Amino acid sequence: MGNDLNQTLGEELVVGLDAGGTRTRAVLAGADASGPLLGEGAAGPGNALTVPVPQLTDHLAEAVADAVPERLRGSVVSVVGGFAGATAASPDDPGHVNARSALTAALRRLGVPAGPVGICSDIEAAFAAAPGTPADGLALVAGTGAVAMRITDRHATATVDGDGWLLGDDGSGFWIGRAAVRAALRTADGRGPATVLAESVGRALGLPDEVVPSGRWTRAAREAYRMHLLPAVMAEPPIRLARFAPLVAEAAAAKDTVAQAVLDEAAGLLTETVRALEPNPGERIVATGGLLGPDGPLTPRLTTRLDALGLTLDWVADGSRGAVALACVAHLAHRGAG
Amino acid sequence: MGNDLNQTLGEELVVGLDAGGTRTRAVLAGADASGPLLGEGAAGPGNALTVPVPQLTDHLAEAVADAVPERLRGSVVSVVGGFAGATAASPDDPGHVNARSALTAALRRLGVPAGPVGICSDIEAAFAAAPGTPADGLALVAGTGAVAMRITDRHATATVDGDGWLLGDDGSGFWIGRAAVRAALRTADGRGPATVLAESVGRALGLPDEVVPSGRWTRAAREAYRMHLLPAVMAEPPIRLARFAPLVAEAAAAKDTVAQAVLDEAAGLLTETVRALEPNPGERIVATGGLLGPDGPLTPRLTTRLDALGLTLDWVADGSRGAVALACVAHLAHRGAG
Repeated sequence: MGNDLNQTLGEELVVGLDAGGTRTRAVLAGADASGPLLGEGAAGPGNALTVPVPQLTDHLAEAVADAVPERLRGSVVSVVGGFAGATAASPDDPGHVNARSALTAALRRLGVPAGPVGICSDIEAAFAAAPGTPADGLALVAGTGAVAMRITDRHATATVDGDGWLLGDDGSGFWIGRAAVRAALRTADGRGPATVLAESVGRALGLPDEVVPSGRWTRAAREAYRMHLLPAVMAEPPIRLARFAPLVAEAAAAKDTVAQAVLDEAAGLLTETVRALEPNPGERIVATGGLLGPDGPLTPRLTTRLDALGLTLDWVADGSRGAVALACVAHLAHRGAG
Repeated sequence: MGNDLNQTLGEELVVGLDAGGTRTRAVLAGADASGPLLGEGAAGPGNALTVPVPQLTDHLAEAVADAVPERLRGSVVSVVGGFAGATAASPDDPGHVNARSALTAALRRLGVPAGPVGICSDIEAAFAAAPGTPADGLALVAGTGAVAMRITDRHATATVDGDGWLLGDDGSGFWIGRAAVRAALRTADGRGPATVLAESVGRALGLPDEVVPSGRWTRAAREAYRMHLLPAVMAEPPIRLARFAPLVAEAAAAKDTVAQAVLDEAAGLLTETVRALEPNPGERIVATGGLLGPDGPLTPRLTTRLDALGLTLDWVADGSRGAVALACVAHLAHRGAG
C-alpha cells in the first residue's frame, strides 16, 4: 500500500469501522470510494451494548490508529462505524448513544478532525458493503446468531428473529451446535438414530476415551456417556455450544444423515426468517456470517431454497467496506449541502 | 389423626421422605404399611446435589420432627428418603453420599434410632408410590423437567432424557413455557400465526399496556413488543420460562390453535421419551409431575398416545408414600434376615 499512501497526501480520506462482538476493524479509503483500501487496523470487541464505553473507546482508537498513519489523520473528512448492539431503531437507544460517544472520543484522542460521526448497525454496514452500495433490500446474518432485516434507504425498517440463543436465532451457529449435542444425547438414550456426532461431540468436550463410543453401545455405555457429557456442557456458558457447528458441517460432508438433516432444517428456518420480510421476487439479499460464506455449510442449501423464491444471495465478509461506502455517501451529501 | 397416634404407642413405625427441588416432605406410618398415614411434615428444598449438606440436614430434621411426635421417635424402625439429585446409578455418586450423610445426621439429632437409612432417587420413590408398591415398570416425570426411567427390582436401570432445559427435557413445563414465548415472538415478527399467547405472555411479563397487542399489529407495534419482551425474559434465569406453561394450557382450553399445537407436540415428545425405554404392551407407567395430574394439561393427550401403544398411566402426587412403602419392604427384609 506504500505507493497508494504516498499519493494520498492532501487527498480527502474516509474511515469505515466494523465493530463486532469479537473484534473491531477499521479501514481507510479515498473519499471518492473508487480506489483500493489505503489502510487497515484491528482491535478487540466492539459491541456497543456489552463493551463498556471506556474500553470501546480504546478498541476503536487502536483500530483507527493502525489504519490511518499519523500524517494522514488531518485529511480524514468522514467516519462511519457499523456497531453490533446498535441495531435498535432510534439514535437515542443505548447502543447508538454508547457508540457515538466512544467513536467521538477515540477520534479526538487521535487528532482526527472528522465532523459528526455516522453510527449505524453492523448489519446496515454489511448491507452497504455489497457491490454498488445498495440502499434498499434485505440483509441476512447467519453466524453465531441469526437475524434478517429489511433495509430501506440504508436503514433497517423491519427485523425478524435475532431473538437470542434462548428464544430464537433459529438456524444459527448456536442452533446447529446445540442440535449436534442433542443428536448425540438422543443417540445415547435410544431416542435418536446413530450419528458420528456422538463421537465427535464427545471428543470435542474432552470426555475420557473409555466413555466415547466406537461401534455398538451397551446400555451401561450410554448411561456413562450421558453422565459425563451433561456436566461438561453445563460447566460452560450456553453460547459456547456454537463451537460444535463445524462438527455438523464435517459430519454432513461425510454423509452422516443426522448431520445432513440438521443443516437442512437450519437452512429451512433461515428461509422462513427471510420469507417473513415478505421479499419481492428478484430482490437482493446481502448475507454475512460464517454459515453463508463461499465455503459456508449452509450456502448451497440456502441458495437453492432462495432460488425457488426468485431471490439471490450476495455474501460480504464484514461491514468495514460498507462503512467506508456510507462515509463517502455522507461526505458527498455534506459537500452537496455546503 | 389423634386416635391413630394413641394406638401406635409401642407399634413399629416407618418414615418416608420425598426430598424435591422445592420442598421436603416426611410421612409417618405403621411398619405393616396397611394403615393410614400417622403424621406428616414439610420443610424447604431437598435436592441432594444442589442444597448444601448442613441445610439439607436442617430441612430433613424439620420435616421429620413435624411428622413424628417426640414420644414416638423411639418406635421408628426404618427410614427411606427419595431425593431429587440422587438419580445416578451408584451409591458412591455425590447425590447419594450427600443424602445419606444429611439424613443420618438429621435422625441422630432427633433421637430416631433407625438403623441404616435407605436412599433412593425421587423417581424410584414415586414409582413405589403406585398402588401395590410395584417393583418393575416405567416411571415418567413431567413437571418443570422431563425424564423417563425403567425401574427393575425397585432401581432405575435406564434413563431417557432428563437432559436439562438447555439440551433436553423435551415436552416439559420449561419446554412448553419457552414455546409460549417463541410463539409470541414469531407472531410479532411475522413468522408465526396469530395467537392469544402474544397477549398473555406480554401481560405475564409486565410489559407496558401500550406495547401489548390487542387486535391487528402495525409493523411499529411488532418491533416495540419484541424490544420490550426480549430484555424482560433475559433478565431472569432461563428456567423461569416454565411459569408460562399454564398460559399455554389456558389458551389451548380456549381453542387457540397455536397453544393446542404446542401441547400436542409436548405430548408427542414425552411419548417418544417413553418409547425409547422399549416398553412391553400392558406395562405399567407411573407418572408424576404437574403436567400429568388429574387436571394436568397433557393428561388426556398423553393418555391417548400411550393407549395406542397398549400402555396405561398411573399418576402419583409425590414419592413420600412410595418411600414409606420402601421403608416397610426394607424392614421386612431386615427382620427376615435377622
